[in-house]
Amino acid sequence: MTNIAKGLEGVLFTESKLTFINGAEGVLTHLGIPIQEWAENSTFEELSLALLNGQLPTAAQLATFDADLKANRAIPDALAQVITHMPRGVHPMQALRTAVSYLGLLDPQSEDTGAEARRAISVRMIAQFSTIIAAISRAQEGKEIVAPRMDLTHAGNFLYMLTGKEPTAEQTRLFDMALVLHVDHGMNASTFTAIATSSTLSDMYSCMTSAIGALKGPLHGGANEAVMDMLDEVGTPDKAEAYINAKLDAKTKIMGVGHRVYKYFDPRSRVLRDYAEVVANKEGKSTYYQILETIEKVVVERIGSKGIYPNVDFYSGTVYSDLGIRKEFFTPIFALARISGWCASVIEYTGDNRLLRPDAVYTGVTDAHYVQLQDRQ
Amino acid sequence: MTNIAKGLEGVLFTESKLTFINGAEGVLTHLGIPIQEWAENSTFEELSLALLNGQLPTAAQLATFDADLKANRAIPDALAQVITHMPRGVHPMQALRTAVSYLGLLDPQSEDTGAEARRAISVRMIAQFSTIIAAISRAQEGKEIVAPRMDLTHAGNFLYMLTGKEPTAEQTRLFDMALVLHVDHGMNASTFTAIATSSTLSDMYSCMTSAIGALKGPLHGGANEAVMDMLDEVGTPDKAEAYINAKLDAKTKIMGVGHRVYKYFDPRSRVLRDYAEVVANKEGKSTYYQILETIEKVVVERIGSKGIYPNVDFYSGTVYSDLGIRKEFFTPIFALARISGWCASVIEYTGDNRLLRPDAVYTGVTDAHYVQLQDRQ
Repeated sequence: MTNIAKGLEGVLFTESKLTFINGAEGVLTHLGIPIQEWAENSTFEELSLALLNGQLPTAAQLATFDADLKANRAIPDALAQVITHMPRGVHPMQALRTAVSYLGLLDPQSEDTGAEARRAISVRMIAQFSTIIAAISRAQEGKEIVAPRMDLTHAGNFLYMLTGKEPTAEQTRLFDMALVLHVDHGMNASTFTAIATSSTLSDMYSCMTSAIGALKGPLHGGANEAVMDMLDEVGTPDKAEAYINAKLDAKTKIMGVGHRVYKYFDPRSRVLRDYAEVVANKEGKSTYYQILETIEKVVVERIGSKGIYPNVDFYSGTVYSDLGIRKEFFTPIFALARISGWCASVIEYTGDNRLLRPDAVYTGVTDAHYVQLQDRQ
Repeated sequence: MTNIAKGLEGVLFTESKLTFINGAEGVLTHLGIPIQEWAENSTFEELSLALLNGQLPTAAQLATFDADLKANRAIPDALAQVITHMPRGVHPMQALRTAVSYLGLLDPQSEDTGAEARRAISVRMIAQFSTIIAAISRAQEGKEIVAPRMDLTHAGNFLYMLTGKEPTAEQTRLFDMALVLHVDHGMNASTFTAIATSSTLSDMYSCMTSAIGALKGPLHGGANEAVMDMLDEVGTPDKAEAYINAKLDAKTKIMGVGHRVYKYFDPRSRVLRDYAEVVANKEGKSTYYQILETIEKVVVERIGSKGIYPNVDFYSGTVYSDLGIRKEFFTPIFALARISGWCASVIEYTGDNRLLRPDAVYTGVTDAHYVQLQDRQ
């Protein structure tokens, strides 16, 4: 029997200094620092820069980066026009993929694949993803695109552009924390697809459109949207226990539960859960939160021993929903955060590049010959 | 030492019944039939359908497929508008990636990822890639887009839309053969990137934009363009021998020579070389052909024993150039052919899907902690 590494599970293909995951113990670190510390202390801007630089930035470096991001928040008019004219009702990730691809047409530096250019383009893309995603949401709702504000943080400005209203400090902080939790996660499928694209020495816009395409799939970025569908299906907290027991009895896959990497609690899910608890203690438990609480309890009791625990998608949808974000935009918001991890990972990989070309086991017919059309059965 | 499979070389990640390559002996088969037989007897349409079906089609199946392709040659007006308004001078692969992504916005079936939908979308994309690429070329030259003709073959119609002139039977046959040679090539980087995207169960448009982005890189689709740059640098046949000896002495990489997979002649390069010889015997040797002939002779003598031989890119640029195709469109033409291999491979993989998630060896710092901004050195 030939040994096939299905899904490339367990296959090591490169070195990385960015992110470490110990799935058995529920550990996730960036630059050696636990995700909990990043979530508690840091910001999207700081973690993004830290990954690009490979270390915690100085105050001066962070200030420069922040100014660079702000200077690049605006998107070209030609792109705003394309977004405005996209058909209504399309999947926002199709719109994002197309808009980012179009942005590549407008960037005079897009064909430069040197390390400096990749970094400069990364900074612009990190800034512009926010404006593009908010613009897509506004255009899809038939509303005017909101221009970015320069006095707000990356997280705060996004919520402002999305809703047209300035968010509270608490909303901004919560959203920033959710972004921090999603910035990077090792060799996940979208980062890996970005690297596969970059391994031919293709340009940054090609890498990022590939990553968006991969993230779009329901086995990757679409999971938290599916969790919300499940919560809506449950309806009320009193029905949660019977619902989830029936699913488990039928061995149906439960969304937001289990993870290829984690065989224990996903540490990101713990951060979001702790936050949700604080809110619940202050404002009372929301319906969604009560349903999640029940499902988590039953899942951990019944199948936790098999290494199946709630993952980050289990709680993130409820957090976004509380912020007034439509379900269809959960995956674009994932991209809004992950863009920094994609860029940092591609830049790291191209520093010691090797074309990705695995192989398949051939199981088809051998020694066949072409048969002329008139002689075929 | 941890074992790292750099570039995933030699890693088997799935089974496939489509294409078999024996690099040591210079063998390439599709459905068990040698590439030479496909090139000699078949057409782009037939090989595309054979890969989608997993077997040689009947005459009736081929006629239906051909009619389907023709019925889908036209592109939506909205897409033609987008192509016409793209900035001049952009890389045609950036334009192709954007156009295909936009096409996804216009296809009401684009979110359907079932097997039947993937196939229906594949047929449309195979047909429309031709019209899109020709339209991009025309728009970039400031010329009117040429509407497809239904009385021409896929290859003939493409040349017609590109140039506005009906090609000769010989030109059509040659171009069709070049397409056949490029339809599929196992788990090459663009096919693999398409599969990585599809492994999250993402949609066909996402898969194909990812593949275009990967193909665009100079380590993949850009190679035959680089060969032409080399030929232009050599200038005249009498300078070829000294040029190539100097390059080999300096151990400089020579474009179109050597291949990750082939350690002997790339069988596709033999087919193109044989064709070029026939033309040379009839019409005399072109300057490009004479230069290639000299370079091949020196390369095989000096480094052939190391398994470094001319590959398909070594000859294809000269063939396209003889057909009057601009150098910048060599990679889009590669996509024009490979789209069928991409689609067939994605459909095959999704039939037994597994999320692609390899891993990296973490080599960064461990046990670090977040340091407050004011406390950093």
